[in-house]
Amino acid sequence: MALEVFHKDETLQMRRKLIGQSCRLFFSHDPVKIMRARGQYLYDENGMQYLDCISNVQHVGHCHPSITQAAAAQMDLLYSNTRFLHDNIVLYANRLAATLPKKLCVFYFVNSGSEANDLALRLARQYTRHQDVIVLDYAYHGHLTSLIDISPYKFRKLEGQKEWAPLPDTYHGIYREDHLDPGQAYADTVKSLIEEAHKKGRKISSFFAESLPSVGGQIIFPTGYCKRVAESVHEAGGVYVADEIQTGFGRVGSHFWAFQLQGEDFCPDIVTMGKPMGNGHPIACVATTEEIADAFTANGVEYFNTFGGNPVSCAIGLALLDVIEKEDLRGNAVRVGGHLKQLLLQLQIKHPLVGDVRGVGLFIGMEIVKDRVSRKPATEEAAHLVRRLKEERIVISTDGPWDSVIKFKPPMCFSIEDAERVSTCIDQILGGWYTSSPSSIPAASAGLQGSISRNT
Amino acid sequence: MALEVFHKDETLQMRRKLIGQSCRLFFSHDPVKIMRARGQYLYDENGMQYLDCISNVQHVGHCHPSITQAAAAQMDLLYSNTRFLHDNIVLYANRLAATLPKKLCVFYFVNSGSEANDLALRLARQYTRHQDVIVLDYAYHGHLTSLIDISPYKFRKLEGQKEWAPLPDTYHGIYREDHLDPGQAYADTVKSLIEEAHKKGRKISSFFAESLPSVGGQIIFPTGYCKRVAESVHEAGGVYVADEIQTGFGRVGSHFWAFQLQGEDFCPDIVTMGKPMGNGHPIACVATTEEIADAFTANGVEYFNTFGGNPVSCAIGLALLDVIEKEDLRGNAVRVGGHLKQLLLQLQIKHPLVGDVRGVGLFIGMEIVKDRVSRKPATEEAAHLVRRLKEERIVISTDGPWDSVIKFKPPMCFSIEDAERVSTCIDQILGGWYTSSPSSIPAASAGLQGSISRNT
Repeated sequence: MALEVFHKDETLQMRRKLIGQSCRLFFSHDPVKIMRARGQYLYDENGMQYLDCISNVQHVGHCHPSITQAAAAQMDLLYSNTRFLHDNIVLYANRLAATLPKKLCVFYFVNSGSEANDLALRLARQYTRHQDVIVLDYAYHGHLTSLIDISPYKFRKLEGQKEWAPLPDTYHGIYREDHLDPGQAYADTVKSLIEEAHKKGRKISSFFAESLPSVGGQIIFPTGYCKRVAESVHEAGGVYVADEIQTGFGRVGSHFWAFQLQGEDFCPDIVTMGKPMGNGHPIACVATTEEIADAFTANGVEYFNTFGGNPVSCAIGLALLDVIEKEDLRGNAVRVGGHLKQLLLQLQIKHPLVGDVRGVGLFIGMEIVKDRVSRKPATEEAAHLVRRLKEERIVISTDGPWDSVIKFKPPMCFSIEDAERVSTCIDQILGGWYTSSPSSIPAASAGLQGSISRNT
Repeated sequence: MALEVFHKDETLQMRRKLIGQSCRLFFSHDPVKIMRARGQYLYDENGMQYLDCISNVQHVGHCHPSITQAAAAQMDLLYSNTRFLHDNIVLYANRLAATLPKKLCVFYFVNSGSEANDLALRLARQYTRHQDVIVLDYAYHGHLTSLIDISPYKFRKLEGQKEWAPLPDTYHGIYREDHLDPGQAYADTVKSLIEEAHKKGRKISSFFAESLPSVGGQIIFPTGYCKRVAESVHEAGGVYVADEIQTGFGRVGSHFWAFQLQGEDFCPDIVTMGKPMGNGHPIACVATTEEIADAFTANGVEYFNTFGGNPVSCAIGLALLDVIEKEDLRGNAVRVGGHLKQLLLQLQIKHPLVGDVRGVGLFIGMEIVKDRVSRKPATEEAAHLVRRLKEERIVISTDGPWDSVIKFKPPMCFSIEDAERVSTCIDQILGGWYTSSPSSIPAASAGLQGSISRNT
């Protein structure tokens, strides 16, 4: 598989014929064919190198040899299922437990973040015996039937029994950075939703939220938000589900889980994890409390996931945890992420188009705006910047309700030099816009089509 | 990971503490710890060999070196997602297309059979704009919220808008082997359900059925059943979904897909596939028609599956197809499956407890009954047989509404010698029951607990 089998045009033609067109390509007008990758670098069919700023799934770097070795060794021994006893699953659950607050001590292994969120929904509903789910606006929790209902980003027309709360975005939202206590104010919006639901005789099973909303625009929750939301949700008999599918495993650097940024006095009742867990391999997980797990067991129905928790997936998961520690990738996220954020903040001073820079560790967003007073999202300019960066062999994409947020979620081995390269390129591209004619700025007609889709 | 990390008792203790108890173990009163496996053989922590009669997921044999090599080679090159162009996904889709009728030519790759069935549900509902689903009694289509509703085996209390049709079981069902045309008779039950639904103003999106119902008791559809069901479903504006998750990839020997046993004049509109596809690796797929895929694309919503269709999963899928061909595993299924069925039919003549032997290729069921006239299922005796076979180092399990069907779904490299070994053991165990005191037969109290759970 090392060599190109088909010429790129033929691959594209076959892809259009054989694969459902709902499955979209990056840069759909001129997609990239990637043959191999290593660390934070991608190589196309001509050997051209691209810097990868968005592959958060390839968490410790593309094709890390330790992961490949662990997978191959276990594949040669046993690739069975969880109905046989095996050490790997308990070793892995034990290692994950050590990263979490004590009460999150029971694990279910599945194959994807979507499967994890679906199971979290089943656990929450079984435990609380309530049905309603509160989610944040612009949230995305997966592609399954049950999750589309709780993903306003995909389907803003939610079914009657679900509510969505305002995104606690202090740049664009109803309460901004000048508010005295935006954490309390946004948490109160959730409380109001619960009260409204109660008035209609409905009951809340759960509040679902990414610990840092990603497709929502790389949002950092204001201080105290999660704790106060959890209080209201618990009061209503519901549970707090922290979706760490994009944000877990040390991406934020200072903590292993992004929900831990909210302080030690906040603990979710269910945590879902996925994308970075296997560095590309399909593995995901739900962690919960003994009480919730017991309620799920009490329904008497077996939960069997054919592939979930198999010895190979767990060996890969264990190897990934080892690499994070051995290579101090959390420390790297703090250092490189911090440096990148500083560089982008300098661009904000220099370029009026850069409205906001926010983030933590290697989870950073840079918002492109028409002007800083109105904060009007500059969707076309952001798309143009993405296209120009691709010409510079930098793969990056946009997020947020208006696709105006340049998002950074690179493999965790991203270096200081990479950060400087991308920042310098952005500086030059933005700088070029002022010295050239205005018409040279965004090719508006190609705007959205040319941008990278969300949810990587 | 080659060596035992914990003593078996400790593994079990940790498992009970760390893993949700809804995830059950085989032989829960005395689970087996498997350290390694090769071909059709499992090895426990003491190096004891077990013959594996049920691991249909490890389709070409446990830990086949060709699969491991293909996986490791691709893992070293690229483990990215389907938003980048890659040859493997189109190569693989092309190979799968060659096994299917021409009209099934568009593919969606996912991570599990459950994800495949959930997507099939979305495709069917989007295309038909209808909601109702007709499923067979005792069916199991997956563990997701959306699929529990269509899996009477898990939840017989279905929601109002769904119907289940009688299982076309000519041994226990309403029409039996002495009926002149059971295919037509059972198909008429589906037609009646559709008419009832229409009277209530409801509309049928789809009929979902495994091409050979597995947890339903290793059922072989009577001739003409599928074609006639498809006619009624199409007339109602619905689509026929063939769930080949357990039965595809040559298990039936004579054909690549079990639905092909129903003749060339039958073709489903959607086929879901999963368990054997990756020989243990999490990969699954939905194949459908251009019309259905186009309707799904037309809703304008992207379908992105983070891991689905990645280069490693497709490399593994391709390697598996090569092994099936190179090792003539379909031919082996015909020869060994045929021989095993003959041996079991001889046991039927000899032992009154063997009520029925049915199956095709390496998909075989042997039904244990109290007596042949009443056909009363002998659940406890079947469980006892499973326990006794475990003592003989043969791993097997039961299926069917009453857990009275001994099921054979071994890796496809199962040999003539393996078939003779298991048949001889069953012969001896059953024979022993007549010469010993009746009380020595099944330990009724341990009956169900000791049996192996379903849905492997």
